[in-house]
Amino acid sequence: MKDLLWKNIAHLKRQSPLVHNITNYVVMNNTANALLAAGASPIMAHAHAEMEDMMKICQALVVNIGTLDEYWVTSMKKAATQANQLQKPWVLDPVGAGATPYRNETLADLLKLRPTIIRGNASEIMALANHNTTPTKGVDSSAESNEAVAAAKFLVDNYQTTVCISGETDIILNQEKEIHLSNGNALMAKITGMGCSATALVAAFAAIISDKVEAVSSAMALLGVAGELAARESKGPGSLQLNILDKLHNITKAEFIATLKIEIKRG
Amino acid sequence: MKDLLWKNIAHLKRQSPLVHNITNYVVMNNTANALLAAGASPIMAHAHAEMEDMMKICQALVVNIGTLDEYWVTSMKKAATQANQLQKPWVLDPVGAGATPYRNETLADLLKLRPTIIRGNASEIMALANHNTTPTKGVDSSAESNEAVAAAKFLVDNYQTTVCISGETDIILNQEKEIHLSNGNALMAKITGMGCSATALVAAFAAIISDKVEAVSSAMALLGVAGELAARESKGPGSLQLNILDKLHNITKAEFIATLKIEIKRG
Amino acid sequence: MKDLLWKNIAHLKRQSPLVHNITNYVVMNNTANALLAAGASPIMAHAHAEMEDMMKICQALVVNIGTLDEYWVTSMKKAATQANQLQKPWVLDPVGAGATPYRNETLADLLKLRPTIIRGNASEIMALANHNTTPTKGVDSSAESNEAVAAAKFLVDNYQTTVCISGETDIILNQEKEIHLSNGNALMAKITGMGCSATALVAAFAAIISDKVEAVSSAMALLGVAGELAARESKGPGSLQLNILDKLHNITKAEFIATLKIEIKRG
Repeated sequence: MKDLLWKNIAHLKRQSPLVHNITNYVVMNNTANALLAAGASPIMAHAHAEMEDMMKICQALVVNIGTLDEYWVTSMKKAATQANQLQKPWVLDPVGAGATPYRNETLADLLKLRPTIIRGNASEIMALANHNTTPTKGVDSSAESNEAVAAAKFLVDNYQTTVCISGETDIILNQEKEIHLSNGNALMAKITGMGCSATALVAAFAAIISDKVEAVSSAMALLGVAGELAARESKGPGSLQLNILDKLHNITKAEFIATLKIEIKRG
Repeated sequence: MKDLLWKNIAHLKRQSPLVHNITNYVVMNNTANALLAAGASPIMAHAHAEMEDMMKICQALVVNIGTLDEYWVTSMKKAATQANQLQKPWVLDPVGAGATPYRNETLADLLKLRPTIIRGNASEIMALANHNTTPTKGVDSSAESNEAVAAAKFLVDNYQTTVCISGETDIILNQEKEIHLSNGNALMAKITGMGCSATALVAAFAAIISDKVEAVSSAMALLGVAGELAARESKGPGSLQLNILDKLHNITKAEFIATLKIEIKRG
Repeated sequence: MKDLLWKNIAHLKRQSPLVHNITNYVVMNNTANALLAAGASPIMAHAHAEMEDMMKICQALVVNIGTLDEYWVTSMKKAATQANQLQKPWVLDPVGAGATPYRNETLADLLKLRPTIIRGNASEIMALANHNTTPTKGVDSSAESNEAVAAAKFLVDNYQTTVCISGETDIILNQEKEIHLSNGNALMAKITGMGCSATALVAAFAAIISDKVEAVSSAMALLGVAGELAARESKGPGSLQLNILDKLHNITKAEFIATLKIEIKRG
């Protein structure tokens, strides 16, 4: 499995899929840079008039609701609908799920459009499965990944999707498979948009790999290992941010394989 | 006083207040990173439908007009009104005050909502107190902090607020107290959004400290000292930006106390 | 010519022109930082109510359509029209030209407003001259600069403009002159918004230099040489991004002259 994930990472650099990102203002720059560093090709757009055309030339879509408003929610729905019609994968990042009724209602609508993959932290995944849960810290998780497994399974069963609960342990599952990854470093939580970069990488791998648990695992393994290696030479969140971009670009097979901590739970 | 400010900085990391930022597109990423590095928790949102709900879960609000438009101005007013009703502090950053009539009119409206704290450079504070002054350089100050003291006192007296004039010397005052800080480095002016990061940190400290001159001083002292220390190991504005984030995260009491230059003028 | 370009670079730091940027969300932060590092002064704004007033206080305008929508396109037209009336230079960056009909239609409208300068990669310049060409990779070029020379000449002849085709070789031409520059490093393509930063620098130099081929060449030479020098000490795209900002700020005449690769083709 470690060799397979590495093969996918190398494959991404050769294929360089074009990923359409409807994402939040806070992270657009570092998300685009994460995609470029890993070898994918980002585009960011939201005009209603070009959502369908843009999906025609892209291989995957990110829908991230971080700084949503009425106009952007329409953009998201247009692009997701088109992605479905063209059978291209789209990934939902439910940023701040549970923080406000408006987010919950928007997410309920987006779930009806059947995201191929959902990636969120434990608080977000729990809020997405059950609107009664309110995360205590806005966009940061106040729960551990394993607390959200039941919520993830609910989403998998009801929306035929693949879910990634990211955190100290990343739990990736759908009806067939389940994989746990345990890389990364606590300092990564001190950089804004690490989760959003993860989602963008997930979309990039989903563009080129048909098995969705494998695609998500490739993305989360790459970012987790890159983050863990980068943290070793970082003095704080500022240097970590740039060291992660460097490492996404120059990671070697040897260091990837030696660092990756993976457990295949099912499938 | 130096020990008190340090106590507040340590307190921020433990409390990790959630700060709602309605801020400009240019600085969202580094503002969020500055809050995270200092130990606070950022959220950025602007949808009208969630402005009131968002203020319920946050402990403070930033209103920064850098890239304002009609939609965002309504978001700002909704959130500020709600902050007032819930007696949560909100901080106004009058970016580019005086540059255009639209900015001046918007600021006049926002002043009526009584910001808890106002932070701007000397040109902005003067423009805010007197619409006849036009800054010569857009968002950069063309004046020294001490030139804006009369304007700051006008704002304090007329709006019962606390004002921070930031610059080579940061002047923080309200009706009871006045503190001057003299840290930082000229290279900080070559990074976009240093002032905006200052405003966000001010909001974070205002969320946990009731004395507003003390709260603002804690924020400005932290950023000024971090910037001054970071500049010593920076080759230009690129490395300074990341070194400041690192230093906001890993600053020690010893270096903070040894570097801080503070004068208590009143109170 | 090398001495002349360096004189312009030094001149920019002294003059510090104010550049109004209507640009895309992805690059606002690093574009502003590039302008500051090179010595110019950025402002980013888009509210319809202040577009004309903002052009009055700025010396040049950037119109970058990366994340366009209906509101922003109106902002762009208002500002460009005002720039023309005030005889201030404006630079068009046709990001993603050819990717969607909406982009092509918007660009056709903007061309009618006669940009002083157009800067794009080869795919974008070809798409701008001939709507039938679709770039295969969204915002990244799939062609070499020299393939776009005929398209650039078409734009020059039909719109009395100056065109810069950026790439491994930057080709800068108008009816009088043509200059080729060959600096830079392949890793620069792995940072988002390098082209957008180039456009912003072009606007800054156009604000202070009347000969437009000379102005564009000063900007492209500065960024190309800074990028080439910065790449020598970078481990990947993360460190390159910050090293470029450092180098834009601290570049010396000796290293600029020694590194610059320039060919005067005409004029």
